[in-house]
Amino acid sequence: MKVVALVGGVGGARFLQGLKQLGADVTAVVNTGDDVWMHGLRICPDLDTCMYTLGGGIDTERGWGRENESWTVKEELAAYGAEPTWFGLGDRDIATHLIRTRMLRAGYPLSAVTEALCDRWQPGVRLLPMSDDRVETHVVVELDGEQPKAIHFQEWWVKHRAGVPAQSFAFVGAEAATAGPGVLDAIAEADAVILAPSNPVVSVGTILNVPGVRDALRKTEAGVVGLSPIIGGKPLRGMADACLDAIGVETSAEAVGRHYGSRKCSENGILDAWLVHTGDRADVPGVAVRAVPLLMSDVDATAQMARVALEMAGVDVD
Amino acid sequence: MKVVALVGGVGGARFLQGLKQLGADVTAVVNTGDDVWMHGLRICPDLDTCMYTLGGGIDTERGWGRENESWTVKEELAAYGAEPTWFGLGDRDIATHLIRTRMLRAGYPLSAVTEALCDRWQPGVRLLPMSDDRVETHVVVELDGEQPKAIHFQEWWVKHRAGVPAQSFAFVGAEAATAGPGVLDAIAEADAVILAPSNPVVSVGTILNVPGVRDALRKTEAGVVGLSPIIGGKPLRGMADACLDAIGVETSAEAVGRHYGSRKCSENGILDAWLVHTGDRADVPGVAVRAVPLLMSDVDATAQMARVALEMAGVDVD
Repeated sequence: MKVVALVGGVGGARFLQGLKQLGADVTAVVNTGDDVWMHGLRICPDLDTCMYTLGGGIDTERGWGRENESWTVKEELAAYGAEPTWFGLGDRDIATHLIRTRMLRAGYPLSAVTEALCDRWQPGVRLLPMSDDRVETHVVVELDGEQPKAIHFQEWWVKHRAGVPAQSFAFVGAEAATAGPGVLDAIAEADAVILAPSNPVVSVGTILNVPGVRDALRKTEAGVVGLSPIIGGKPLRGMADACLDAIGVETSAEAVGRHYGSRKCSENGILDAWLVHTGDRADVPGVAVRAVPLLMSDVDATAQMARVALEMAGVDVD
Repeated sequence: MKVVALVGGVGGARFLQGLKQLGADVTAVVNTGDDVWMHGLRICPDLDTCMYTLGGGIDTERGWGRENESWTVKEELAAYGAEPTWFGLGDRDIATHLIRTRMLRAGYPLSAVTEALCDRWQPGVRLLPMSDDRVETHVVVELDGEQPKAIHFQEWWVKHRAGVPAQSFAFVGAEAATAGPGVLDAIAEADAVILAPSNPVVSVGTILNVPGVRDALRKTEAGVVGLSPIIGGKPLRGMADACLDAIGVETSAEAVGRHYGSRKCSENGILDAWLVHTGDRADVPGVAVRAVPLLMSDVDATAQMARVALEMAGVDVD
């Protein structure tokens, strides 16, 4: 049973844990739009969150970064006055970034680097960067009454905690990017494709912006099923509402389902089915909707969600 | 009173503390032949040892690296199987290397990077890299009965603890290098030039190999005085005897003094005076020799050594 999941960071990583527990052959297409150069290191937050979560190295409380993390290098960088100081660069984490940066500078593509790093973590899921090309999500904001300007997603998300209204998002480099090695093939050959309950704008949305991905989703013979990251009109985690506001989509399970749209009935739609949380309702034309618990409170609960999603995709899970 | 000192790492840094205590206007020309790329970071051991020692950040027991150091990144790199694992890359130290590497990659010369780092440490001494060019000391050795091959000085020094006989040294890049900004001028304009009791082969010797430096020493109007790093036929610290063996110089204060040679009487000589430790004797033709305590047991003792050296250079210290 080959399953492809489109995922972002924390929520996506937890969803992958559920899928993995079902024993599926899982390929995760991971958002790299949040990737950033920081102090000369290439940082891939979503890839690392997935790798650490599935490999048993994650700080489960925080949801990102390494367990038993220390922050010595970060403190020392601040003592030098080296900007930025607001990014959570842990000591253990830095080893990952050093290896990645060195390999990238030696000419290895991000996909090969990710594979090398996974050699240690053995995530049990194939982690594919959505693209080996540099695609960066930037956010247009007005800071302190200045003219609107674009800042890196991380600056908006981490430094400003998405507290400054986003006027729009720019997916810099997306148009010229190509999907990472294996991404389009995995979608084409999958038995099921799942959109994880990740941020629909800056996680799943960013992946959908990579040329070829949306087409592959529309053409695959696999069923395509999404899980709503919006529960009771609020994001399950993160600040997806601030992102949805910026693109004029209401923060509701129904609106996000309609934003993804139907493969059958809408021009750019990608869904066959849409899962919403128990008690939520959604009417998405041309899309089968079902309400089940979507809280990912533990791996068993998450596996149960994943099981329903696979069933909705027409795959039999035993 | 303008003093120029040619220095290496631990011994050089301690000697600078003594010079600084005398209130002299000190310019240190620092060996960069030990510099190395490690895990994608540019590491300058001697510059950092001088900077940390004079700036109050050194681990005084070890003599190198930062006090209260931790080794998390190093352990994580080893967990990834990333070679080399034998180099002492501390977490606090890594912040320095990250800033240096980032600035070098942005196009700043090492001298400008060093100045920027010293902004934090305020060493109270002008630290000049001997050259902004890449000059690397390599060591020709036979490992495990293989053919002789050249390894980086750090591999020989740190990994093998200089325990593999050095057949010769290669100062890679030295011929094409130019002295760092300010180095030759500082020597020309000095009131005294001191060769610190650093390794005569791979510290002071490396600096002397930078084109123009030896000439500047021979031409300056300042007195040039050296301090013996060999006491009672043994190196004060480090493994200078292994280095001297390789170039066919006996490990004695006299032999090292003769190796440096007289400005007046030998073709490539650079010394006017040579200080040896109390009880040691040296006959160096054309060079004034004096025996005084050279142990650097504390800053006061070191300042006293420096005071004698300046007097021998013809400078009046009050």
